[in-house]
Amino acid sequence: MDCIFCKIVNGDIPSQKVFENDRVLAFRDIQPAAPTHVLVIPKKHIASMNEAQDEDAELLGELLLTAKKVAAELGIAESGYRLVNNVGPNGGQVVYHIHVHILGGEKLGGLNVKA
Amino acid sequence: MDCIFCKIVNGDIPSQKVFENDRVLAFRDIQPAAPTHVLVIPKKHIASMNEAQDEDAELLGELLLTAKKVAAELGIAESGYRLVNNVGPNGGQVVYHIHVHILGGEKLGGLNVKA
Repeated sequence: MDCIFCKIVNGDIPSQKVFENDRVLAFRDIQPAAPTHVLVIPKKHIASMNEAQDEDAELLGELLLTAKKVAAELGIAESGYRLVNNVGPNGGQVVYHIHVHILGGEKLGGLNVKA
Repeated sequence: MDCIFCKIVNGDIPSQKVFENDRVLAFRDIQPAAPTHVLVIPKKHIASMNEAQDEDAELLGELLLTAKKVAAELGIAESGYRLVNNVGPNGGQVVYHIHVHILGGEKLGGLNVKA
């Protein structure tokens, strides 16, 4: 398995974990795009949202609810945050293992602003 | 109920629907930030991700899976897209009824680019 996020799940690659249970893992993004930038992933390998199946509904919901809880624990629930899932080339997906970005700690930019 | 998205669910305010079932509704954003810009909402009123509860897991997962299906129907699955949920002031949340933005149809900007 050549997936970098599967290796993080397995412990073959270290990560700064902020939450973990049997199904999901949350860890700091190594190239933060905001003062708070955490990724939430399922431990199960799903390449992207395009590959998610109807039976993954509860797991996908748990990703979002985990993001909510992590945001609260990191103190950004009230000030606000953004959850982002990139899919494919136009979305800018880099790692093909579903991940939800939690971005916060400052007023974020617009929905689709080009540099 | 003063919620504009509840009024769209109820049909009191018109919308350009792209998908609907008993639990979720998808419609075009009236101020598109990308060539394809659709919102997916639960029919149940949940103000933001901060107010979502553990028992909403399956519903939240269905939002993401609906977004996946809508992206495929609109022909942007392969080229890629971005799913965004804004929460609170720093996230830029405008309407306090959970909604997932589907953005696609072009190469999207970075994760947190300021205008």
